[in-house]
Amino acid sequence: MRKTTAKLADGRELIFFDADDAPLREAHDERPLTAAEPNPSEIRLDAVTGDWVTIAAHRQGRTYHPPADECPLCPSRDGRLSEIPSGDYQVAVFENRFPSLSGGVGRCEVVCFTPDHGSSFADLDEGRARLVLDAWTDRTAELRQLPGVAQVYCFENRGAEIGVTLAHPHGQIYAFPLVTPRTARMLQQAARHRAATGRNLFEDLLARERTGDRVVLATEHWTAFVPYAARWPYEVHLHPNRRVPDLTALTEAERAEFPAVYLDLLRRFDRLFTEPGQPWAPTPYIAAWHQAPHHDAAELALHLELFTVRRAAGKLKHLAGVESGMDAFVNDISPEAAARRLRELAP
Amino acid sequence: MRKTTAKLADGRELIFFDADDAPLREAHDERPLTAAEPNPSEIRLDAVTGDWVTIAAHRQGRTYHPPADECPLCPSRDGRLSEIPSGDYQVAVFENRFPSLSGGVGRCEVVCFTPDHGSSFADLDEGRARLVLDAWTDRTAELRQLPGVAQVYCFENRGAEIGVTLAHPHGQIYAFPLVTPRTARMLQQAARHRAATGRNLFEDLLARERTGDRVVLATEHWTAFVPYAARWPYEVHLHPNRRVPDLTALTEAERAEFPAVYLDLLRRFDRLFTEPGQPWAPTPYIAAWHQAPHHDAAELALHLELFTVRRAAGKLKHLAGVESGMDAFVNDISPEAAARRLRELAP
Repeated sequence: MRKTTAKLADGRELIFFDADDAPLREAHDERPLTAAEPNPSEIRLDAVTGDWVTIAAHRQGRTYHPPADECPLCPSRDGRLSEIPSGDYQVAVFENRFPSLSGGVGRCEVVCFTPDHGSSFADLDEGRARLVLDAWTDRTAELRQLPGVAQVYCFENRGAEIGVTLAHPHGQIYAFPLVTPRTARMLQQAARHRAATGRNLFEDLLARERTGDRVVLATEHWTAFVPYAARWPYEVHLHPNRRVPDLTALTEAERAEFPAVYLDLLRRFDRLFTEPGQPWAPTPYIAAWHQAPHHDAAELALHLELFTVRRAAGKLKHLAGVESGMDAFVNDISPEAAARRLRELAP
Repeated sequence: MRKTTAKLADGRELIFFDADDAPLREAHDERPLTAAEPNPSEIRLDAVTGDWVTIAAHRQGRTYHPPADECPLCPSRDGRLSEIPSGDYQVAVFENRFPSLSGGVGRCEVVCFTPDHGSSFADLDEGRARLVLDAWTDRTAELRQLPGVAQVYCFENRGAEIGVTLAHPHGQIYAFPLVTPRTARMLQQAARHRAATGRNLFEDLLARERTGDRVVLATEHWTAFVPYAARWPYEVHLHPNRRVPDLTALTEAERAEFPAVYLDLLRRFDRLFTEPGQPWAPTPYIAAWHQAPHHDAAELALHLELFTVRRAAGKLKHLAGVESGMDAFVNDISPEAAARRLRELAP
């Protein structure tokens, strides 16, 4: 993997990740961008729930469903200048122009998985998927060194149904200034489990799931299963078999096996809702890497949570009054049935 | 208020709430319904977060966007038999035919606000809105007496953007078998505040908000404000000025003032996103009554949380990777700006 760093016209950082045999990258951003007005985000604590909320009042003007020929994530070609001032790239990461976290309150980055606008993560070959894993790992190592960063979160939102406003295949990385509410709950549960049993919560859960009927696939280094209390119609948790705190702690053997496993999962997801004789209906999904916060004693086990908001062809699971009002999820599909269906969708 | 109780053909309960001068109701359900197969919901604890999830695998076949002339919430007229076997009603409540909570694990009810299919809560007159308040209050008192019910939750989802699949104006009531995750967090925060200060959390918050710049409207008995750490683009919390645990504890003076206050708020919400010269765009919203669990020492203060997922005309706030993955909400509109705008939208 070769890493090339550059600056965009307004001072934001741009980083290319390429295979070793790729052409060298040079980038000169010729756009007349000026540095963003300092308009920092604000973190507010909700005294009623104990959770914090980010107020980012400067983002309403962000790019919204641009036509394909104005895509800011495509390479800069034919006189059209995008966010990536290069005629080609393999994987590119840059600081978000409309960040939720800004002004010293964390940082937001965009990860472009491929220069091919009409593609998707599931379409990548294993070499490119490995390059994305390397990019996530590099950014985790770098961002957690920034002052004030507590937790690095790599994720992908896929599909307009999820709220994605740029169709080009990409993910995001948030370097949070605080431990997120969900991670804080996980750490609290892990601490309780440690106090009660002397063992790690995630290791115990993975051991239980590996012998049960919710496994989707299991390889030498990875296990994918539908969790016992899945919140979403189709939800898969992918764990390395060996507990590690974050992406930087994976071995080469674990890293080498990841692309095939993850691409297999994504392709099963994409087969969930396409009905015979109907046009292909790509599955909207969220893929969320859970990593231990930098200053945590590492009870949290690295894993990826992959889930879709689609519950049937043409029907979405909305977070309405029960979920959004009371955090009480109702799942219409039993986790065991979801696992069975995902097993049947093997290539 | 006059209450009339009947049974639907499959044994479910139906209750009419009418003004004292309304015609007497009789209901004979002539549909050939058979009692639902016993297929109870299951409550599963997520060991990783400590939250519970309801698995309701029997609901996938529920009614989904029927045409208006097949609406199950309209009165039964002209030979068409709906869920309400009466040619007219004012407010009607019945057990949900496709309940998320069933088989002894709680109960779900539907509340029809009006027989007028094309109307909305904001279109009700004060008398009808009062009748709905009386129905919510009656159901709270009744349902919490059922064996195994821990918390009664009255709410309305409004708009297809929220996932509403029946356009007829209606709300729902869930009688939960457990305290919901969000309520549990509120109770934990209130207990901490009590331990630290000797005072009630909600009383302190309301006192602070009443003197600040996030008040939307304040009357003799009620105060509506945008909370300091609002999660949603437009979010209003409506509290009675006197702390009470639930709807059954409101005085007649508080009850009498509620309809005008709530209708005013809903009508401001409906003016948020309609642009000059454009067709009226009703605001999708969730209205959620927070009540103290039945067996709680009543640190939780009754209040209504009203919020919309729309952030601008034609644009929704989606719960994507940051919110759904990490419970870390990002709000693009500052709570102070939201309050100012809602104040300006006074009738």
